[in-house]
Amino acid sequence: MNNFSFSSIAVVSSCYKEKFSIPRQSGLVSEAIAELTLLKPYAELEAVRGLEGFSHIWLTFVFNAIPQGDWKPTVRPPRLGGNKRLGVFATRSTHRPNPIGLSVVKLLEIRSEKGEIKLILGGCDLLDGTPILDIKPYLPYADMIPDASGGFASEKPFKKMEVQFSDSAKEACISASQRLNVDIKLFIEQLLCLDPRPAYQLGQFGERVYVAYVYDFDLRWRYLETERLEVIDLSFREE
Amino acid sequence: MNNFSFSSIAVVSSCYKEKFSIPRQSGLVSEAIAELTLLKPYAELEAVRGLEGFSHIWLTFVFNAIPQGDWKPTVRPPRLGGNKRLGVFATRSTHRPNPIGLSVVKLLEIRSEKGEIKLILGGCDLLDGTPILDIKPYLPYADMIPDASGGFASEKPFKKMEVQFSDSAKEACISASQRLNVDIKLFIEQLLCLDPRPAYQLGQFGERVYVAYVYDFDLRWRYLETERLEVIDLSFREE
Repeated sequence: MNNFSFSSIAVVSSCYKEKFSIPRQSGLVSEAIAELTLLKPYAELEAVRGLEGFSHIWLTFVFNAIPQGDWKPTVRPPRLGGNKRLGVFATRSTHRPNPIGLSVVKLLEIRSEKGEIKLILGGCDLLDGTPILDIKPYLPYADMIPDASGGFASEKPFKKMEVQFSDSAKEACISASQRLNVDIKLFIEQLLCLDPRPAYQLGQFGERVYVAYVYDFDLRWRYLETERLEVIDLSFREE
Repeated sequence: MNNFSFSSIAVVSSCYKEKFSIPRQSGLVSEAIAELTLLKPYAELEAVRGLEGFSHIWLTFVFNAIPQGDWKPTVRPPRLGGNKRLGVFATRSTHRPNPIGLSVVKLLEIRSEKGEIKLILGGCDLLDGTPILDIKPYLPYADMIPDASGGFASEKPFKKMEVQFSDSAKEACISASQRLNVDIKLFIEQLLCLDPRPAYQLGQFGERVYVAYVYDFDLRWRYLETERLEVIDLSFREE
């Protein structure tokens, strides 16, 4: 009676190849592109007929990189500095009783090629390989609540952060942008202004080099001052 | 790999006791009140700590009154008159590959009494008894998309409808409002301006009497003209 079983209807190929550096919500990094591929028997063009009229869609998905059953009644949201506990249902933590995620993303294109149906998505916050349970249109008249109050998470989590690029990083951005057909410099700026460091390292700067595997490269950067960082390089990964 | 199993974390006691007359989206009928009760082992006050700071919450739920497996690649949305087919993923139809629903509702109150944790919700569109898979806060900075375009469902589905009440219906509204602590006249007006009739009966008027089981009564009404209806009576149900 209380148990329900679902099958994924699609899978996402995302620019985020590992958990580290994934934004906490969708829509914060417009250049975070993902490709959703419908799985059989849902891979029919008519199943998405009319979706092209919507600018944004909801994805209901599974946090499949989190061990199931790995939840506690309270969590420590990173935006509260990681030292205050809130109820799991008052947060969008990945560690929840049912590891179900919810993201609204921009629908850039619907492609039908070689018998595959793909949705090209912008502003994504999903890990590569995420299984999708449902796709729904974003309905402004129901989903936009102008007078809603946002509790402890009222503001966008952007930081004032000056992002510098080394010469080699600049060049690598140009070639990556051509290869991937995405503005990679803008992607990196948007991503790093969200400051993906764990709470206890915030405010530190110095020799520590951070690495995130995004798109098809390892992005490396370090903090020169509290609000200034340098992108050291982008090293292409053959995989 | 592609199959996922979830357990309900809560159950909803709603004013909508049957499918007929349930609004197509949440938020359209502010006086549609529901009570969500957390199930064990989730029924701990600390699991919702901090939720009181949010005005609205997302509910991920199961359309449990729809037979599982009962879906087709296309559906006929009632708002298109029921004669145009759209892809199931371009709609919020209840008949979908995974019967998962998504509603944003107003969080009116969090109650802890006799070892039970209840959330009192407004603007609900859930059937009585709906199993809840997840509760998440509504985050305005991520969930409000002012420039989103809403495809075939851009406008709120309210109709210009004059709602008259018979004398006995007026009296019954007063006593029901006292009994239920809800503005029942307003509830009925909001509900019937959404015109719950099936598409092929729209525009008709005459002797046909409609009945919907809501709260603790059968609501009965008929159409006097295309845009004018009469609430005939509210008959209390002992259950």
